[in-house]
This record gives sequence, structure tokens and C-alpha cells, in this order.
Amino acid sequence: MDSQALIAELASTARLAARSLSTATGDERKGALEAIAQALNARTPEILAANEIDMANARKDDMHPQMQDRLLLTKERIAGMAEGARLVASLEDPLGRVLKDSVLPNGLLLKQITVPFGVIGMVYEARPNVTVDAAVILLMSGNAALLRGSSTAKNSNEILLTVMRDALSTTSINPDVLQLVPSDDRSTVKALLTARGKVDLVIPRGSAALIRMVVDESTVPTIETGAGVCHVYVDEHADIAKALPILLNSKTHRPSVCNAAETLLVHRAIAPTFLPLALKALSDAGVALHSDSTAQKVAEKFSIASTLATEENWCTEYGILEMNVAVVDSVDGAADHIAKYGTNHTEAIVTEDKAAADRFVALADCAAVMINASTRFTDGEQMGFGAEIGISNQKLHARGPMGLEAMTTTTWIVTGTGQIRS
Amino acid sequence: MDSQALIAELASTARLAARSLSTATGDERKGALEAIAQALNARTPEILAANEIDMANARKDDMHPQMQDRLLLTKERIAGMAEGARLVASLEDPLGRVLKDSVLPNGLLLKQITVPFGVIGMVYEARPNVTVDAAVILLMSGNAALLRGSSTAKNSNEILLTVMRDALSTTSINPDVLQLVPSDDRSTVKALLTARGKVDLVIPRGSAALIRMVVDESTVPTIETGAGVCHVYVDEHADIAKALPILLNSKTHRPSVCNAAETLLVHRAIAPTFLPLALKALSDAGVALHSDSTAQKVAEKFSIASTLATEENWCTEYGILEMNVAVVDSVDGAADHIAKYGTNHTEAIVTEDKAAADRFVALADCAAVMINASTRFTDGEQMGFGAEIGISNQKLHARGPMGLEAMTTTTWIVTGTGQIRS
Repeated sequence: MDSQALIAELASTARLAARSLSTATGDERKGALEAIAQALNARTPEILAANEIDMANARKDDMHPQMQDRLLLTKERIAGMAEGARLVASLEDPLGRVLKDSVLPNGLLLKQITVPFGVIGMVYEARPNVTVDAAVILLMSGNAALLRGSSTAKNSNEILLTVMRDALSTTSINPDVLQLVPSDDRSTVKALLTARGKVDLVIPRGSAALIRMVVDESTVPTIETGAGVCHVYVDEHADIAKALPILLNSKTHRPSVCNAAETLLVHRAIAPTFLPLALKALSDAGVALHSDSTAQKVAEKFSIASTLATEENWCTEYGILEMNVAVVDSVDGAADHIAKYGTNHTEAIVTEDKAAADRFVALADCAAVMINASTRFTDGEQMGFGAEIGISNQKLHARGPMGLEAMTTTTWIVTGTGQIRS
Repeated sequence: MDSQALIAELASTARLAARSLSTATGDERKGALEAIAQALNARTPEILAANEIDMANARKDDMHPQMQDRLLLTKERIAGMAEGARLVASLEDPLGRVLKDSVLPNGLLLKQITVPFGVIGMVYEARPNVTVDAAVILLMSGNAALLRGSSTAKNSNEILLTVMRDALSTTSINPDVLQLVPSDDRSTVKALLTARGKVDLVIPRGSAALIRMVVDESTVPTIETGAGVCHVYVDEHADIAKALPILLNSKTHRPSVCNAAETLLVHRAIAPTFLPLALKALSDAGVALHSDSTAQKVAEKFSIASTLATEENWCTEYGILEMNVAVVDSVDGAADHIAKYGTNHTEAIVTEDKAAADRFVALADCAAVMINASTRFTDGEQMGFGAEIGISNQKLHARGPMGLEAMTTTTWIVTGTGQIRS
């Protein structure tokens, strides 16, 4: 069967099975998650055995150690996945929430309620925990899932699907709501992205190349998760005692993730005091610096290693200990730089001046603005969502960390007694 | 200049000007709409003169009379547009609404607020009133607008833009937030749809061919407005006294619009009583019928003209007085038919049985469900939104009629006192 026909069949099976979700009560969906949690714990040895096959292949193929670590499952990690399922089950039911409720002049009762999307496709990389994390979030939000992980995690994903589907078969939920999309062939990704009318939504999580392919080729609605070129702007009225730790935490706490900062912007008025401290602290923390001409002079004066930043530097999401530094004239100047080079993810301002913070919020045009806090707080767990299926980097539908709520759409229910339009 | 460069320039000018909107107060935006309303009234003769050029061309080109009527502006219609601007100004400000508000354990203040998208492109047809309706909704929601109407309305759109921009120049809002996209060449539509990073959102309103082009070629996020193959399901427990007027109103009140019904589904148990009445009433109203084999027998028995429905019939949005009729075995059977042939727009159930209505809601998977009411109520004005920029036929972001609120996105504002992640 070709990939397009395969995806059509998986989606159609999943959609029919999804009726067992859309008509299930919240307690039934919670029960399904509990069954999955129990099965993950009970069948840990099988899961570990399958994962070991993937790990052996990874070692044979000289996979990067960091990637190997992402692929690895341990007893503790599996227990963590089970705990994650229980956590999701403990959250407020995202379905059937009444968002609007009114009586129209003609007596019609108008309600807007949250409902599932239907069938959601996930495209992700070699982290088998995503298979379970995504499945439980999608089940709890009433959606069937087409899960397309990496071929390097094939054996792990297969056993995880078996365990979860077996668990569902003991509940009122039809196990066919969870479908593993074969990962042997890249054509299944393309087929998923173009299964218009069959798949309601695709969420890609992965490389810039994947996101670009999604943008170019998808005919199914998608939510992009993606690049974060985040900035820390230290305002004229910043408290330096706050600015320095926020800067270091934003850059160095976990440089590989999307909410890490890539560029420091400093107001010209505070640059003479702040820049020498900041450049030295970054340099001491092992951060390679790329500076504009003003900052470069400061670096040279204090013998701190730095190169002159290029256009490419300002646009780059490093993911490692590397950072750009620029001096700007005002909040608007910072916003200009961010508008030119940012990716609308997270922007931080350090200031004691409320007017400056308000103007920064109005101009920053991003998923999250941090006022006197680290960019690293753009995160579902940190924000108290309980679970996160990704961070949306687009403006449509959901913006920033996405929890259960973002996996629902709405419908209008109009109840009448025979009203017609005149 | 080629279309791509042109759109990039218009969008860039609009984005810079949009700062005057994102930093404006609600009262300033309302003031801008009032200035537009006054200018439309004051400059009515100029607008009528320009419209007459378009009308003369339309007559010369033998434009369909119905299309000519859409193109025509009159003193009353212009007054209606001005009144519409004032109505939008009177609605609740959609910006800066606090959707979420909490204090995290580490003391961070977390707020989710509504903010504008930025630059929104509208692609629409030969109705110059859309130029003003869209502009005022986008201005009130803080967005700059790239308006791409039909070339047949070129002169009308140009004068309307001039009038609105002149009006803005007397306010704090930069007139460059409104840009007319040249309509001489279809390539400007394509350029708008692919102006990724320059345009935040495109809303196409028009033919199925336009929507298909949007789906295939757009790299900018879009909200599709589109096809409505809507169904009226008359349940076993329907009150026939309600069912008949709802059916007739849904089909015949205004057959050309997307919320008109195309297919009648009747529960087998009520078919013997209801079908003869329904077929006769539809036929008497001039509706051409296409029936499944069961309904066809009833039609023949009562000598009512009907053809046997084809696969194509079930999928067709007629837009005229033509309707399909099928007999189903249950709510689930109705849902099966709708899942196969529907377009997720509006589905109606007529029933006195609450359980049947609830199950229909759970299975219908559409933007709006009508319980004992006409499908014609899926409409922003009818639903009390005050203004409507279109009806979303997708599940992402907004579903059903879209008012001011749908033209906003959100941002997370995290306010701290120097918090960093540990």
C-alpha cells in the first residue's frame, strides 16, 4: 500500500474509533489514562527489551551520545511516563467547557463549547517518551492520534503503542484511537501533511527542515512549534542586580532549548555600567560573543574575546553557548531589532520602569514577554499547565506552551423551539 | 515592481504603521472608526461617482445582474457602511482582555492577554462594502489590513481607501495601516498568500477555486471561509410542526448562502408521516429533489418530481433551490452520512428527545449545531456578534462566525522580580 492510502486508512479507522472518545465522559477518559499508567508500569520489562534493540542499533550507527540519551528508556523514565499520564488525568477536563452562553432576542439559547478536533497527527523525533506524552494529552482532549515518530525509535514506539492499546481494550475507549504511523519511509510524513479532510491537525515537532517542509507542503492545518531567537533587553532603568542573573540564566541554563536567549540588547544609557559586567560574566560562563561595533569596543577595552556580529549571527538560534550583543537607543530600538531578527517566541525586558515594560509588551509581538524574569519560563510545566504537547510559535489558534486546552476546538450549539429566520 | 516585492513593501509599511494601533487606547481606535463613519457620509458623492465607473464597466462586460447588485453602491448602502463602523466602535474592545491570570509558586505573575495579529490580508470578491466592513473590524482589533478586492470593484475600492485613509490622517492612527492591494493582476493574490513573515494571517472569502488555491499554495497562516453542505436531520422524535418550517427556512430562505441546507435526512420511523409532507412542501416551494431509493419511492407514490440522488448530489453545495433527501436508521446513521458528505459547517437536528440531541452534538463535528432551529442562524449578526468578517469553516483558531475577538491572538506576560530557573 502506498503511504497516502495507508494514512487514509489509519485516519479513517482512527476517526471512527474517536466516536468512543467524543461520546465518553471525562471520567471514562481519565479511566483510560489510568489503565495506560498501570500497563506502562506492569509491562516495563517488555518496553525496556524493545528499547534495547533501538539502543543497540543506535550504538551500531554511532548515533550522537546526546541523541542516544534521548532515545534511552529506563525503569525510572517509564515510571515518569506513567506518572505523567496520571497527572494529565488529574487536570481539569478540557471538553464540554462552556465558553459563551447567552439567550438571543428570538429566544434561541446560544452556547459555545469546547470539543475535540477529531484526528490529530504528531510528527516528532527520536524521543519515545513523546509517544506516550502526546497520546495521553490527545486522549484526554478527546482526539484520536496518528503518531509518527522516528525510525530510530521504531521498536520502542511499537511496544509503547501495543501496551497503550492493550490497556484501552480493557476500557470503554476503542484502542483504534491510537495509531502508529510506520516510520521506515519519509513519505508517510508527507502523506500525513497532505491528508486533507482525513486528518484535522498536524503538529510537527522537530528540526527547522521539518518545519519548512510543513509550511511548504502541508494542506492539513498545522501548528508549528519551532525556532526561538529570543532576546534579553536590559533597559535604561534596569536593576543590574536582576539583569545579570536573568541574562546568564536565559543563555546558559539550557542553551539547547527554544526558550534560551540568543541576543542581548542593552540600552545605551546603561551600557557603560552594564556591558563590561555582562560581557565578562558571559565570557566567564564559556559563552562565545558576537558584538555590534559599540559592544565590540567595550569587549576590546576589557580584553574580552568577541567577534564583530554578522547579519547571520543576529538571525541564528545557536542552541549552544554563543550569544550576540547589541546596544540600542530605546525600547523602540530594541523592538526594531527584535522585529527584524526575532522569531516571535519569547522576549525579556529588565526594567524598573512600568511605562518601558508596557511599551515593550505592546511592541514585542511574541508568544511570551518576560518582565524581569528569565526567558526560560516559557514552558507549560513552569506555567502550571500540568502537561505540554509543544510550544506554538505561530499566532493562529494557540500561542506559546500548549496544554490540553489547545488541543480542543469549539462548536456553537443553538437550541430553539422551532425558530426560523425571517 | 513584481507582485512579491510589492506585497513585501505594502506589508512592511503597514507593519510599521500598525505600531500606532498596538499602542493606541481603545478610545483612540473608536475615534478612528467614528472619523471613518463621518468621512463616508460626507464624501458619499465622490464614492458614488467612482462606483458608477465600475458599474458602467460591469454593464459593458455583461456582468451577471446578481453580481452587479453586489457591486452597486447607493447612498443608503454607504450610510449603512458608516453605521456599521459605528456599531463596531460600540462593541467591547477586543484587545488587552485578560484571559488567564495567576500567581505561580515562585512568585511570577502570569497573564494571558489578547493582542492583535499584526498585518492581516483579506482576499475577497466584487463587494465594495467588504472593503469598509473588513477595514473597520481589523482596525478595531488593532490590525493593519492589506485589502485585495476584485478588479471589477477597483474604482470603488480606491475611493473607499482614500476616504478612510484621509479620515485616519485626522486621528492618532497612521493611515498606512490600510493598504489597497492592486487587483489588476492575479499574481498579487499569490504573493499575499506566500508573504510568510510579512503577513501574519490571510482570510480568503470567495469561490471554491480560491479556497483550493489557498490550501495548496499558501505559506502564510490562513482562515478558510467556505463551503457549506449543511444537513437538516429530522429525528424519530421530531415535532413535525417544527420540522417542516425549519426545513423550508433552511433550504429556501436564502439558498445562495453557505448556511443554507442542501440535504434532508429523515429517521426511518418518522419517514412514513413526515416524508410525504416534506417532499410536497419542498416541491411546492420550487425545490428540485434528489432522493435515495427509499425517499424516491415515496416521491413516486405521491407523484412528486424527484430524481435518484447520485454520489455527486450528496456532495454538492447547490446554492439554488435543489435538495437531496435520504432516510437513515438512527442518529448515528445521520452522523455517518454527515461525516461522509458534510463540510463541518452547520448541521440541524429536529427532535424532542434530549438524548438524541446530545448524541447528535457529540457526533456532528461541525462549526454549529442547530437543535430545533433553522441552519440559517449560523451568522455573526444573528448570534449577536455585532459584526462579522466571515464564517470560519476550519477547526483551527476560530470556528463559525468570526467577530472582533477572532481577529486577535494572545500573548503571555510574565512579570517577575528577577526570577531565574533552577
